[in-house]
Amino acid sequence: MKTRKIEHIGIAVSDLNQAIAFYEEVLGLECYGIEEVADQKVRTAFFRIGDTKIELLESTDPEGPIGRFIEKRGPGIHHMAFAVDNVSEALKEAAGKGVRLIDESPRQGAEGLQIGFLHPKSTMGVLTELCGDE
Amino acid sequence: MKTRKIEHIGIAVSDLNQAIAFYEEVLGLECYGIEEVADQKVRTAFFRIGDTKIELLESTDPEGPIGRFIEKRGPGIHHMAFAVDNVSEALKEAAGKGVRLIDESPRQGAEGLQIGFLHPKSTMGVLTELCGDE
Repeated sequence: MKTRKIEHIGIAVSDLNQAIAFYEEVLGLECYGIEEVADQKVRTAFFRIGDTKIELLESTDPEGPIGRFIEKRGPGIHHMAFAVDNVSEALKEAAGKGVRLIDESPRQGAEGLQIGFLHPKSTMGVLTELCGDE
Repeated sequence: MKTRKIEHIGIAVSDLNQAIAFYEEVLGLECYGIEEVADQKVRTAFFRIGDTKIELLESTDPEGPIGRFIEKRGPGIHHMAFAVDNVSEALKEAAGKGVRLIDESPRQGAEGLQIGFLHPKSTMGVLTELCGDE
């Protein structure tokens, strides 16, 4: 597949407001949007940096994926997302190369993008997301 | 401070050659350099993507930082590095805002850059590196 850029880095945080303050006041970035993604049980905050973005993720439900991640490992970097032209085709290509998928087909993510996750068992421990317009 | 871009994402891997093959054959990236950083007890492989880079890190010593990270948490994303103009000044500015530092002053990192780390206790669990030419 052709990965054009890192679309975003997803970071699990315990307190979204505290984390926003750190990224703004210490690292000099600016939060341009806060969005709740009910499907993933998170509230997200986005920052642009260079040609990529940082997505802070606060859990809205201890049983959701970010709640469980923080319970197990503490806050920290949760996933890395690559921009591809066509998520559906990229998922099929990865599966054809023996990569285990979390999502067999794309679903709706934050910012209106189509997304699909590769399983960390197949990506050397890195939860890897593919993002695109279709 | 002014963070210009994400300079790289550092990923701890158990087997550098296997990881290079995944990033090349599945994600379509190209490894442009392999370098041993004796000071950090790692062998690194670099990939350009958009305006940033992925740095794979294989430990050369179980007692080194990557060896210990993998022993404790398994392979996965290890740190996030931001490009700044002056690492020394950025570290001082962060310390002045109450951020705990791993490096009080810059040291030599991979690719000839000056680097300094902020402590994850002050950065919500994300090991955060500042990189620059000075």
